[in-house]
Amino acid sequence: MLQEKNIYIQQITDKLEEYLQAHSYSKVAVIVDENSYEHCLPIVKPLLAEATIIQIQSGEENKTLTTCEYIWNALTEAQFDRKGLVINLGGGVIGDMGGFCASTYKRGIDFIQIPTTLLSQVDASVGGKLGIDFHSFKNHIGLFREPNAVLIDSVFLKTLPQNEIRSGFAEIIKHCLIADGDEWQNIKSAAYQEINWSERVPHSVGIKAQVVAEDPEEKGWRKVLNFGHTIGHGIESHYLTIPGKKLLHGEAIAIGMITEAYISLQRGYLSEEDLNEISQYILSVYGKVTLEDGLIDAVLPTILQDKKNEGKTINCTLLESIGKGIVNIPITKEEIADSLAYYVAL
Amino acid sequence: MLQEKNIYIQQITDKLEEYLQAHSYSKVAVIVDENSYEHCLPIVKPLLAEATIIQIQSGEENKTLTTCEYIWNALTEAQFDRKGLVINLGGGVIGDMGGFCASTYKRGIDFIQIPTTLLSQVDASVGGKLGIDFHSFKNHIGLFREPNAVLIDSVFLKTLPQNEIRSGFAEIIKHCLIADGDEWQNIKSAAYQEINWSERVPHSVGIKAQVVAEDPEEKGWRKVLNFGHTIGHGIESHYLTIPGKKLLHGEAIAIGMITEAYISLQRGYLSEEDLNEISQYILSVYGKVTLEDGLIDAVLPTILQDKKNEGKTINCTLLESIGKGIVNIPITKEEIADSLAYYVAL
Repeated sequence: MLQEKNIYIQQITDKLEEYLQAHSYSKVAVIVDENSYEHCLPIVKPLLAEATIIQIQSGEENKTLTTCEYIWNALTEAQFDRKGLVINLGGGVIGDMGGFCASTYKRGIDFIQIPTTLLSQVDASVGGKLGIDFHSFKNHIGLFREPNAVLIDSVFLKTLPQNEIRSGFAEIIKHCLIADGDEWQNIKSAAYQEINWSERVPHSVGIKAQVVAEDPEEKGWRKVLNFGHTIGHGIESHYLTIPGKKLLHGEAIAIGMITEAYISLQRGYLSEEDLNEISQYILSVYGKVTLEDGLIDAVLPTILQDKKNEGKTINCTLLESIGKGIVNIPITKEEIADSLAYYVAL
Repeated sequence: MLQEKNIYIQQITDKLEEYLQAHSYSKVAVIVDENSYEHCLPIVKPLLAEATIIQIQSGEENKTLTTCEYIWNALTEAQFDRKGLVINLGGGVIGDMGGFCASTYKRGIDFIQIPTTLLSQVDASVGGKLGIDFHSFKNHIGLFREPNAVLIDSVFLKTLPQNEIRSGFAEIIKHCLIADGDEWQNIKSAAYQEINWSERVPHSVGIKAQVVAEDPEEKGWRKVLNFGHTIGHGIESHYLTIPGKKLLHGEAIAIGMITEAYISLQRGYLSEEDLNEISQYILSVYGKVTLEDGLIDAVLPTILQDKKNEGKTINCTLLESIGKGIVNIPITKEEIADSLAYYVAL
């Protein structure tokens, strides 16, 4: 199944060489940031001797139209035509933004994703969601387009800082909670630092690919992947605006999963036992973040702008049980406030 | 056939009312410029009492990322969700740019085109090409996406200045030259000022829709629609950079059709008789533009950046006869220079 969706989990140099030989691109560009330039580009560079290297600055705060202009400019100056290829080598920011730029350059050229962080391997690289942030709204401008290939190799994870591994792990936890109770038991059975990623990543990618295949443009069931993200995104966006107080994506989603699991209990979907198991495990991995007073007022405008909403209704994904999500549940501001109070009191 | 492609040529108020009643949009925005605000919006306004009006400045020089930011901002401030509708009411600039903004807002919301110029009715509104200019490159950033509906009504043409009518007429001429020799005789049979647009527009739209249906993403045959546009676009872009010396799109394409017909003759495709007929008729409608010295050096860089090219090869659409185009013919800079010399000597 994964093969059909153009996702290849194997040794990167083998697969990339095979891919490039099977196509005849007029030019190749590689988009990197300073991290993937240093740690990841050397691994694939021998296959890309003539490629145009486009280096941007890392970080969600650079996932902007301004950076897109820089990328479009670089492609234009290197005289890329419609037969060119863009390779996005890096984390989710590079994949989302590089894919958006490739999909809109001369009305769309080929691109492949080589996700190099755990987060982007199990989440951003699969599903064709591309885009950039706009003002403080995450992924506000973008489109759906499947990459021509996604090449995943755990070799890239070896140079990743531990907090980045932990951030990506949040999406693996999420995939278990919404769709695979057995895998939830698997990942819990050892400390997360001991997990063998080359086993767990393919499983997690498989869950996501299956959900996306059923509903590519997020008309219904795909919204299940947003569990933890209604409140989590709001918190993440809020912290982006406070200098020096940044939360990694997975750290924010960890809070989102606990609070949205709490709402699931309040709504009568989730058992207290399941909620406790979820809260305890997630806290054991991520610890607890001290949320300042007034946070709820600060995050609500962002939550209201969430793309999943319709009108003034906040549409949330909740849990029926561990391993089973439920989509399109309208929740209220008061429920969000209560759930954050629950988190604070843990 | 037209019905299938969501193109409706009928009374605008009837069709728009029917369309809006058949859908349940959370919000509706209408994008206009100062011209369509004054002349076209009053016609549909009674049906759109609650719509958000987004007014931009007319002109190709405003088909930019900056204007897109303005439109995205307006949609965001009006809290448009994914169930919103954008109506593009105006010429090609509004259709291309408004369609691009709608297709990328929250990864894509519905939009309909109500083209109000002859040019946009017979060309831009059909075929799903969306985008904006980037630096001096026309439609350099964009994507392919079919509008949810195209509503065409000749009522809008009544307030159009004569030079705008003549500009749009160039695309009708082009459609005849590449695909319909009989229609070429029809349009030539009277002065263009006497043409009944409510008869000729549906025919011309039909030609374009048929070509697009065969090759939506311009992999091959659709390139036939670019006849006159390789050199014509270069000239148009060049004049955009000279204050006070603007050529309308059709005026530039008229030059492009004559010069590319000349190259068709030189290559042995087109007869001298056909070339003369084409040159004489087009000059009789558009007159002759005085091209300054050095024009060829100025337009070549733009022609080389044309999206239809591959590598350094300039890919051109030529004519085999009146009514029959031929695509993907590589031409040289020298041939372009010679063809411009032919035009100057006419």
